[in-house]
Amino acid sequence: MSPKITGELLRLLRQAMRSCKYFSEPIHAYIVPSGDAHQSEYIAPCDCRREFICGFNGSAGTAIITEQHAAMWTDGRYFLQASQQMDNNWALMKMGLKETPSQEDWLISVLPENSKVGVDPWIIAADQWKNMSNALTSAGHSLVAVQDNLIDVVWTDRPERPSTQLRTLGLEYTGISWQDKITTLRGKMTERKISWFVATALDEIAWIFNLRGADINYNPVFFAYAIVGMNSIRLFVDLKRLSDPVVRDHLQLDSPSRPELSVQTFPYESVYTELQAICAALGPKDKVWICDKASCALTQVVPKAHRTPIPYTPLCLSKAVKNATEIKGMKMAHIKDAVALCELFAWLEKEIPNGNVTEISAADKAEELRSQQKDFVGLSFPTISSVGPNGAIIHYRPLPETNRTLTVNEVYLIDSGAQYIDGTTDVTRTVHFGTPSAFEKECFTYVLKGHIAVSAAIFPNGTKGHLLDSFARAALWESGLDYLHGTGHGVGCFLNVHEGPCGISYKTFADEPLEAGMIVSDEPGYYEDGSFGIRIENVVLVAPAKPKYNYRNRGSLTFEPLTLVPVQVKMMNTELLTQKEKDWVNEYHRRCREVVGAELERQGRMEALQWLVRETQPVV
Amino acid sequence: MSPKITGELLRLLRQAMRSCKYFSEPIHAYIVPSGDAHQSEYIAPCDCRREFICGFNGSAGTAIITEQHAAMWTDGRYFLQASQQMDNNWALMKMGLKETPSQEDWLISVLPENSKVGVDPWIIAADQWKNMSNALTSAGHSLVAVQDNLIDVVWTDRPERPSTQLRTLGLEYTGISWQDKITTLRGKMTERKISWFVATALDEIAWIFNLRGADINYNPVFFAYAIVGMNSIRLFVDLKRLSDPVVRDHLQLDSPSRPELSVQTFPYESVYTELQAICAALGPKDKVWICDKASCALTQVVPKAHRTPIPYTPLCLSKAVKNATEIKGMKMAHIKDAVALCELFAWLEKEIPNGNVTEISAADKAEELRSQQKDFVGLSFPTISSVGPNGAIIHYRPLPETNRTLTVNEVYLIDSGAQYIDGTTDVTRTVHFGTPSAFEKECFTYVLKGHIAVSAAIFPNGTKGHLLDSFARAALWESGLDYLHGTGHGVGCFLNVHEGPCGISYKTFADEPLEAGMIVSDEPGYYEDGSFGIRIENVVLVAPAKPKYNYRNRGSLTFEPLTLVPVQVKMMNTELLTQKEKDWVNEYHRRCREVVGAELERQGRMEALQWLVRETQPVV
Repeated sequence: MSPKITGELLRLLRQAMRSCKYFSEPIHAYIVPSGDAHQSEYIAPCDCRREFICGFNGSAGTAIITEQHAAMWTDGRYFLQASQQMDNNWALMKMGLKETPSQEDWLISVLPENSKVGVDPWIIAADQWKNMSNALTSAGHSLVAVQDNLIDVVWTDRPERPSTQLRTLGLEYTGISWQDKITTLRGKMTERKISWFVATALDEIAWIFNLRGADINYNPVFFAYAIVGMNSIRLFVDLKRLSDPVVRDHLQLDSPSRPELSVQTFPYESVYTELQAICAALGPKDKVWICDKASCALTQVVPKAHRTPIPYTPLCLSKAVKNATEIKGMKMAHIKDAVALCELFAWLEKEIPNGNVTEISAADKAEELRSQQKDFVGLSFPTISSVGPNGAIIHYRPLPETNRTLTVNEVYLIDSGAQYIDGTTDVTRTVHFGTPSAFEKECFTYVLKGHIAVSAAIFPNGTKGHLLDSFARAALWESGLDYLHGTGHGVGCFLNVHEGPCGISYKTFADEPLEAGMIVSDEPGYYEDGSFGIRIENVVLVAPAKPKYNYRNRGSLTFEPLTLVPVQVKMMNTELLTQKEKDWVNEYHRRCREVVGAELERQGRMEALQWLVRETQPVV
Repeated sequence: MSPKITGELLRLLRQAMRSCKYFSEPIHAYIVPSGDAHQSEYIAPCDCRREFICGFNGSAGTAIITEQHAAMWTDGRYFLQASQQMDNNWALMKMGLKETPSQEDWLISVLPENSKVGVDPWIIAADQWKNMSNALTSAGHSLVAVQDNLIDVVWTDRPERPSTQLRTLGLEYTGISWQDKITTLRGKMTERKISWFVATALDEIAWIFNLRGADINYNPVFFAYAIVGMNSIRLFVDLKRLSDPVVRDHLQLDSPSRPELSVQTFPYESVYTELQAICAALGPKDKVWICDKASCALTQVVPKAHRTPIPYTPLCLSKAVKNATEIKGMKMAHIKDAVALCELFAWLEKEIPNGNVTEISAADKAEELRSQQKDFVGLSFPTISSVGPNGAIIHYRPLPETNRTLTVNEVYLIDSGAQYIDGTTDVTRTVHFGTPSAFEKECFTYVLKGHIAVSAAIFPNGTKGHLLDSFARAALWESGLDYLHGTGHGVGCFLNVHEGPCGISYKTFADEPLEAGMIVSDEPGYYEDGSFGIRIENVVLVAPAKPKYNYRNRGSLTFEPLTLVPVQVKMMNTELLTQKEKDWVNEYHRRCREVVGAELERQGRMEALQWLVRETQPVV
């Protein structure tokens, strides 16, 4: 991985900052967040502005350029990767370390008095704008909205915004019609006396209309906005996409069943003027719901007196709690996914001794095997296929220049997942094809103990995910070890592999209580820089538990693993496991054998079945 | 416990609210917080306004009175007590339950449009004012500062503000002179470019001047404010208290060693005008540090542009990290405290069969035994001495009308502590003098498992206490049980028994990372309403740990118990304990026997020694 050369680009950008062509005064610092106008985590190539300017292509990071400095903030998952992808024009700001200043503090420390800090108001969220603006103002500077994106000014070969074909989803996949989802939303609006709801998150728009797209790699979403009132539904999308009769029929564009369920369509770009028109006609008591993570540009269209900002939208919460149809689909998707992975591991075992399997070819094989499964659409994120020291790069993605060969001498970590029409998967397994070292086994076992501690935890209804995070770390902590990432994230159903508003992390923001039907990942890890990486990840369903007592009738919850892929026993130091932990492993493996074994047999994949049976022998 | 009759008082208060005598317009709602002008948790009788108006005398609660309603918010510790102490003019608002509205939401739901909500700006903290004001404003109401306290208007026999004798503490107790503490504070001010620091919390003022008072029961503090600049120190206190030559000498009032360490003294009440004078003379770049928990009245004296609000002050953090002298003192205080408790339990065992020991007489005996120990000053909080069902009232305090007799048939819970000149103690033990039921033992054992899980935890430097809270609950949760309070609070050194900014709780506000030298309590519990209460509480010191590895050189921490009182083995179901947990119990009891045994022997208290030896036999 060689760093991107950015000297000339920075010169051009600084020229634009000074020029007064894009803002009435010179800009002393320019902030480049990683998101798009929808604050998406994964973004289309046309929106990869932070990557374009600094070279770092991880999913999270913010670049700030001043006349003298260029700095990029990212978190522990990406320290190594970012340091390799950026040239020495850039300072890497390691978030989460005590000595690293916040963006605000850093700006205040480097800027001359009374500076202007510019940002594109479409790609900064309203809450981030507010925090940044307050901090800068209190230090005598100001945050200013630069309408033309200054990266686009210097990005001469910027790609077009994608506009892929839309896919409609029937009740057999969604469980609830889009009309019923609109009605439920309106019920919540009535409850809170809200007149209008502005949807800006792409997965929420895809979810409520039971539509999918392919505008962003790995995320089956499409560029759109929606504004829902008590009697109207406005959808903003490239209108060419609505010429498909299947889509027209799905949305009842030509013959709405009821007037209040008639969808009015508008060009994507007109959301700003249309929202302005809506706001101009608001009555004195009308309130507009808009997420405080929506863009600053769109948020500020709504007059403050009419704005009811919310940390996450009602769609976000409804979407997180999967219905019975979605749960059934997710279970099916995970069984198919397990079939593909059992085949992969059986194949790897056979092929690795020949010395021809690399990180890239193993990832390709995994994709090929998944693509043979019914209703496969694509991957849910770039496969992390990493051998030995590459495994310690938490969000590693193999590239030709980093590609290592799988051998019987090093630990192999594969974190991968797919989009099927019935569900989304995300699974990590760490395996050794020879003889792991005692230290590798020890670390693996601590990680496994953490994984089990979360997965088997019983906790009261209403518990927030952050209260479970330490369960995943206790065994590592006891030996002085840890990992610098959260333990789990929400997972969409044929939607984004990362979704809110629940998760399991030491970070506590936007962390809604877990409830039955939510689906999250459980993925503790351990990373020994320069040597190996370990992570054990299952996707798990929040499910009711029935412990002995029921304190204050609150009810209890636990997790049911949806991922059903064996955890390699060879990597375990079973002496470090308690009897309860061994029982958990054996019961988990019994279910893998029973459920995935049946499907392997049905599909006639006998080699993988043999591998599964061997890998699920009880631990004693 | 019979409720306070409040009909007439509420009539008079509502009359005052309507009268326009105390505010230019009628007040539609009046908020009565539980604090004083220093936001103290424990308050002097003259400040018990919320108790006066509603009858509930717990440490936390807010009353709100409107023309039609009177409601009082408190947390899970106090649900039972509050319901018993308030008459039916009052609605009890149970905080933490899903169906309970916040104060803001409740006000918005009951008030007519455009209402005025009044509050005394001295007894509401600036951050609470801000939240309440924002919420009310966005609903069309307004929060207004009523300078005369309306409770005082109807409280005809309100006591005087106390002004007790001040006690000076030498280096043998404090480890650091007040002059050095001022210098350290000024160092932090310089670092952050702060010109003035306003101290309003009574324990912080006592701590920095190495002075103690007795103005508030159980808390060795005195009513004062302090304002520290780079060259001046202003102390606001009833000036009569400074006539004592020992105090004058301690503060070097008559012959300061250096001009910048000269203390100027002012009457307590003049803090407002003096701070106004300081603020009038501020340069454009001068910044004033004031805690956002300081009173709204005092905070608003500082112009917003000069105000640097902080969630807790530098004194709060310095005070929390005990120095070697303080740790030595705290250890000694806990040994003396253990001597008294061993004597108490030996005495109880002998006396209970005679049927003459009550909750009150047991508490009195505990106080008598503690008072025989060197440097005893008083209790650190009202003793919770509770038998059977009274034990389920989390912050129960025995009163003549609730007083139960200790028997061999019911669980006895005693939560008590003392102030010694060398340290503050806080310990809870739950015991049975006959044969506990299987369910009582089961619950006790889950609580013990939680206590041990926290106490024995190893965790990285920089970990916040809230990340440890679930360790205390895991065993209870697994059986569907829980407790509705936090797991631990900071403990002062001959200061308040509850102090910030660290603690162990599922609540995450103002929760600074734990560091070596901090002292907190570890006190999980279980409460079976109408039947029994269980709590096991030790005060523990945060201490460096040396696990096998040291990930990223972050270092690890653990807890060292300072409390050394046996945990009753009879209450344990040892079959539910793991070997590691049994080892912890045995090692803890070995230390109790060794350390407290030596002191009992030295003091010639042989009966208690025999009891200690018997109660610390190893568990197998």
